[in-house]
Amino acid sequence: MPRIDAKTKVCALFGHPVGHSRSPEIHNAAFEALGLPFVYVAHDVEPGQVAKALDGVRAMGYRGLSVTIPHKVEAMHGVDEVDEIAQGIGCINTVVNDGGRLKGYNSDGLGALGALRDADADPRGKRVVMLGSGGAARAIAVSIARQSPPRQITILGVVLDELERLVQDVGECGRTVVEGAELTPQSLQTALSKADLLLHCSPVGMHPKEDASLVPPELLRPGLVVFDAVYNPRRTKLLKEAAAAGCRTIEGIEMFLGQAYVQFELWTGQQAPRDVMRQVLEGKL
Amino acid sequence: MPRIDAKTKVCALFGHPVGHSRSPEIHNAAFEALGLPFVYVAHDVEPGQVAKALDGVRAMGYRGLSVTIPHKVEAMHGVDEVDEIAQGIGCINTVVNDGGRLKGYNSDGLGALGALRDADADPRGKRVVMLGSGGAARAIAVSIARQSPPRQITILGVVLDELERLVQDVGECGRTVVEGAELTPQSLQTALSKADLLLHCSPVGMHPKEDASLVPPELLRPGLVVFDAVYNPRRTKLLKEAAAAGCRTIEGIEMFLGQAYVQFELWTGQQAPRDVMRQVLEGKL
Repeated sequence: MPRIDAKTKVCALFGHPVGHSRSPEIHNAAFEALGLPFVYVAHDVEPGQVAKALDGVRAMGYRGLSVTIPHKVEAMHGVDEVDEIAQGIGCINTVVNDGGRLKGYNSDGLGALGALRDADADPRGKRVVMLGSGGAARAIAVSIARQSPPRQITILGVVLDELERLVQDVGECGRTVVEGAELTPQSLQTALSKADLLLHCSPVGMHPKEDASLVPPELLRPGLVVFDAVYNPRRTKLLKEAAAAGCRTIEGIEMFLGQAYVQFELWTGQQAPRDVMRQVLEGKL
Repeated sequence: MPRIDAKTKVCALFGHPVGHSRSPEIHNAAFEALGLPFVYVAHDVEPGQVAKALDGVRAMGYRGLSVTIPHKVEAMHGVDEVDEIAQGIGCINTVVNDGGRLKGYNSDGLGALGALRDADADPRGKRVVMLGSGGAARAIAVSIARQSPPRQITILGVVLDELERLVQDVGECGRTVVEGAELTPQSLQTALSKADLLLHCSPVGMHPKEDASLVPPELLRPGLVVFDAVYNPRRTKLLKEAAAAGCRTIEGIEMFLGQAYVQFELWTGQQAPRDVMRQVLEGKL
């Protein structure tokens, strides 16, 4: 840890609870690696207290925040300005304080996009199938539609009103063909038969229910790239079966790291020391 | 520095400016020495923003604060409860947060009292002369009158309305005889002729005007203990002349350290690692 003195800039996590977050260790190691005068702490903020906490951030001159569950929407309403991508997503996970003026961003989908690009799987111009329509799906779909538009996104979900809203919002980004359908064996088979990239964004397969996957192994084939937003476990049943079927696979921790890189760069203006951050995270998982 | 994780408790300094404070280094070294899961940062809070910052402290679950110039009065009005000694002094320099309820304390005078006791110069039952009637004088006079009442305190000052209020407030502590008088060569000579302990609490002798002292050397004599609240320089003109005259002397950094020990113990419930804190401060002065 760098020595903290009276000039050290402060960043923090807002969540509830926060006790199990790895973000303090990751960001502090990154600050230290670059010799930057920053420190990152975690604050457990009760629901309903986010506006007061944000006023405190202004008054105390914090440099920035990470915002996690359940505060991503409440925080969006408490900042002074919201980045366009975060507006499209409908929530923020990052705040930058410039002289008392707070701007909200959402780095979750950008983190996934970065992970896809790092794996040479940029969705631009590709046929994408997304499973799920919740928060992760929304962040990723809006971000890629705006930043690296696929030829087509097919979103399959089970919460139909949520799915419909997501299809509409992604469609309004205007640079990609978006379809939505109820997730069924048939709709999944049809969509995957012509897909380049599968983005699994539902919680299926997450610890402790690890022995589950939405995708029958017989639908997996070489040429399909498979990303799983679930990162606990790192190798989900879906990713194991995809790898066995010859697919390239991308783990959810790449998205987690990707969003942390984006946050770090927004706060510091410096390129994130990716290897350091990855090592800290992998040492802890 | 201890590794900061999501369970690390946060304490901070509120001041304006804060950039030259040594408190972050001192308290962080102390937390580390005891292996406590605490970190201490500094926040530059604009005047008028203290109430918002304190709301933030509640919402973010800070453990405690140090409060310095110019916020000691504004902060007192923003906490939920004020310790009796701090009420008597009229301002706070310390906050403890117990579950969202903020209690204000003033450790400045207690720090001076601790320094006097450590030097075997407890004012209890003694004849004390105090020079000055500002913030340091007030903190020390009220604290010793309540915690370790002298037989008599003679306060000599030049700001007569301020002096009068201080004499009245110390008198209301009710356990010591308090006199006030304008500081003149004659009043100083009379008071010192029968004093056991001289507490210099004015800024005279402070850097950069180091070649100044309120006390003519011929009034200094063995048997008089001399404390100087000025800590920059450590050895003021007064202390050098007092030592030359055979007086026992106590430096202002002992008060600064003493108030930090009290704060540390209020936040952590642990005895402060005094040697560590002293070493950090002395390494920096």
